[in-house]
Amino acid sequence: MSLEEEVLRKLRPRAGTVRRLEEAVERLKRSTDASISRSGLDLRTMLVGSVAKGTYVGEPDIDLFVLFPEDVERKDLERVGLRIGQEVLGGETRYAEHPYTHGEMDGFEVDLVPCYEVKDASQIRSAVDRTPFHTRFVLSHLDDGKRDQVLLLKQFMKGIGVYGAEAKVQGFSGYLTELLVLRYGDMRGLLKAASGWKPGMVMDMNSVRRSGGSAPLTFWDPVDHKRNVSSALSLDQFCLFVHAAREYLRSPSERFFFPRPRALMDLDTIEATFRSRGTSPFVVVLDRPDLVDDNLYPQVQKSQLGLRKLLEMNEFQVLDMSCSVQKDVRMVFELVSAELPPSRLHQGPPVCTDNADDFVSKWRMSGLGQPFMVDGKCMTYAKREHRDPAALILAKGQEASLGNDLRELRGLRCFSGTKAYKTGNRRAFTHLLDRREPWRV
Amino acid sequence: MSLEEEVLRKLRPRAGTVRRLEEAVERLKRSTDASISRSGLDLRTMLVGSVAKGTYVGEPDIDLFVLFPEDVERKDLERVGLRIGQEVLGGETRYAEHPYTHGEMDGFEVDLVPCYEVKDASQIRSAVDRTPFHTRFVLSHLDDGKRDQVLLLKQFMKGIGVYGAEAKVQGFSGYLTELLVLRYGDMRGLLKAASGWKPGMVMDMNSVRRSGGSAPLTFWDPVDHKRNVSSALSLDQFCLFVHAAREYLRSPSERFFFPRPRALMDLDTIEATFRSRGTSPFVVVLDRPDLVDDNLYPQVQKSQLGLRKLLEMNEFQVLDMSCSVQKDVRMVFELVSAELPPSRLHQGPPVCTDNADDFVSKWRMSGLGQPFMVDGKCMTYAKREHRDPAALILAKGQEASLGNDLRELRGLRCFSGTKAYKTGNRRAFTHLLDRREPWRV
Repeated sequence: MSLEEEVLRKLRPRAGTVRRLEEAVERLKRSTDASISRSGLDLRTMLVGSVAKGTYVGEPDIDLFVLFPEDVERKDLERVGLRIGQEVLGGETRYAEHPYTHGEMDGFEVDLVPCYEVKDASQIRSAVDRTPFHTRFVLSHLDDGKRDQVLLLKQFMKGIGVYGAEAKVQGFSGYLTELLVLRYGDMRGLLKAASGWKPGMVMDMNSVRRSGGSAPLTFWDPVDHKRNVSSALSLDQFCLFVHAAREYLRSPSERFFFPRPRALMDLDTIEATFRSRGTSPFVVVLDRPDLVDDNLYPQVQKSQLGLRKLLEMNEFQVLDMSCSVQKDVRMVFELVSAELPPSRLHQGPPVCTDNADDFVSKWRMSGLGQPFMVDGKCMTYAKREHRDPAALILAKGQEASLGNDLRELRGLRCFSGTKAYKTGNRRAFTHLLDRREPWRV
Repeated sequence: MSLEEEVLRKLRPRAGTVRRLEEAVERLKRSTDASISRSGLDLRTMLVGSVAKGTYVGEPDIDLFVLFPEDVERKDLERVGLRIGQEVLGGETRYAEHPYTHGEMDGFEVDLVPCYEVKDASQIRSAVDRTPFHTRFVLSHLDDGKRDQVLLLKQFMKGIGVYGAEAKVQGFSGYLTELLVLRYGDMRGLLKAASGWKPGMVMDMNSVRRSGGSAPLTFWDPVDHKRNVSSALSLDQFCLFVHAAREYLRSPSERFFFPRPRALMDLDTIEATFRSRGTSPFVVVLDRPDLVDDNLYPQVQKSQLGLRKLLEMNEFQVLDMSCSVQKDVRMVFELVSAELPPSRLHQGPPVCTDNADDFVSKWRMSGLGQPFMVDGKCMTYAKREHRDPAALILAKGQEASLGNDLRELRGLRCFSGTKAYKTGNRRAFTHLLDRREPWRV
């Protein structure tokens, strides 16, 4: 039995699960229909997502959509949709582009989502309106063999860490994996093609251009030709997938699908790594704002980039960085040095301007040397305000470009030198220093 | 008596000198005419340069040109010209664009130069052919009052260190100072105008544009409208002149014309300056090639820039540099640090290429951490080959972009850390660290 056969045996849902799931879906539909008839509206429901398509791996989440005619006003759709959700699930109201209800049915997680039933996917009023088209497209093209290949591909992507379009992952959505299998026939066909991909790939179900896209991968949605299904995919996740495809084809292993868990590095190893490189750690800790991941992660990424820029503008050389979001937000930076000289070379105005006179008289007495000129500009050595990164961030951190909900840097603490090697930072340091590919852990 | 009157009294040649000079010129002309008649050719001589124009400051050099008709072949001009030079001066043969004779007459230095007598300065066959036109132009426009102003301006430029078009100075030629006085009426008029100059000035005797020139200053030659009289002037010398003009007008002082000599800094002060800035000195010493200054200086400058680039490409941060050419060539660099970490961040090929596989397998075992990807590129920490600048220059100096006659780095010695503070380097360090303007020394 081939490796992929073996993996598939683990992925195909067990008969018991399938039966329980079918019963739960039936109960959910009946309960929803009953709630709909109490609303006095004539609404259809539609099972969508991976349960509808039979392409789930692991624990399935049930997505049931309530389809509203287009002439219903949006506020009525939301009001009625949420009331049905409450009646059926009693669960919590969530907000993506518009509100829906999240709950549970017979042990399965359920999303009950109101949407508009539009004629054409290009006419949608909200992103969720597109989902029924996706489900119908995949169902009408997927046979059992290809369904297996979707399971394989999804698990491969989960294993290497590129599955999911959410902000935390910035990888491949479930729909995108299904389209890729339909497009390339099976997982191996896709991996072979992907081995030769370069950022900027543009394709749809029939054609492909090998460059020119503004995103790493552009895959035009077959149900809406102006939408890129792959817009959430980041460059590094695209590259990781291409790299994994090459390595898997060269030496396939179950580790791609089921990687070993990565242990946190111990503090001695972390310290020894920095010492052998001669580099310096710098850690910034912030309170975690109360936000859903899809809002939080982009803000954390933006904030870390902003702090990096602030460090670099103040002449700290940042080699690498990483972060970990758990109970708080922990950013680690790897610096060439966490202590800069007491002076800095300060560039002033061009010599041939009125400002030059002020600059020269101001700095003539700085004590670190007289001003001088280089390439037509005034220069001087000035006392450096912040010689260590902690002092800089504490004093000027709020001037950095930060995520909206991190703007006040609540709970800010900074650690450099040996103080950075703290138990609490092991996860962020492991992200930074253990760069083994998941299948090599 | 005004400051400028007082300075002028020191600049105007003494009657005794003028008489001795006139007698020497007479003797030189007679002797040259005699030598010409022995050659059988019918040649005129012409006194040119600052003696002819009466615009010399300090010890005058006599420039006597022998004018050849255009139908004489170049090799005959050179042969006859040098023979006349030998007969008259018995001096040494020198080469600028073409050969001439340098010698002495009654204690004055003399250049005896053969040139073609052309109809128009735009028709010249060698740069020296233009000189008679310059002399005639200045003589026909200069009166005694303006002659005084030329003396003042030349001494001002000498004092602040921007007089002379030679490679060592990259400043204002004598002819350019004369044109500037003719154009602006007197020294003060020029300084007032220059206070507002910015790099890129373009002018001729009648018009001016305040920007757009590719040189810091373009002054179209009135006798040859396509030639920039100011082409030798460097940006920093242009800026120094503008800066000095502003400062002089604000508080005039004899120090602009006659600066105090600059003492060499003592070793303790040099060391203390670096210590207070927290920066590191690095010194490169080379044998001095046997070249005239006009060939040597551009090569030294090019070589120092080349070594700077090599240092920077290897991640040494160069803040400033200077050099001193005496018995040998001494270049000093001011570095943020003369010791780099044992590792360096090494960028590899894009992830999505065949080369990436080789890179990843090569660096997986480097011991400083596994390769990783950033922005679609492979990265790794690698052992740094040269942690100190001396080791780098000794190993790879010859790969830098160097002047032709310095290409082999003959006599190369490098000093960093406390070894750099050596007696022999005081001059170069003084250039680097004593940035007081000449009039403030």
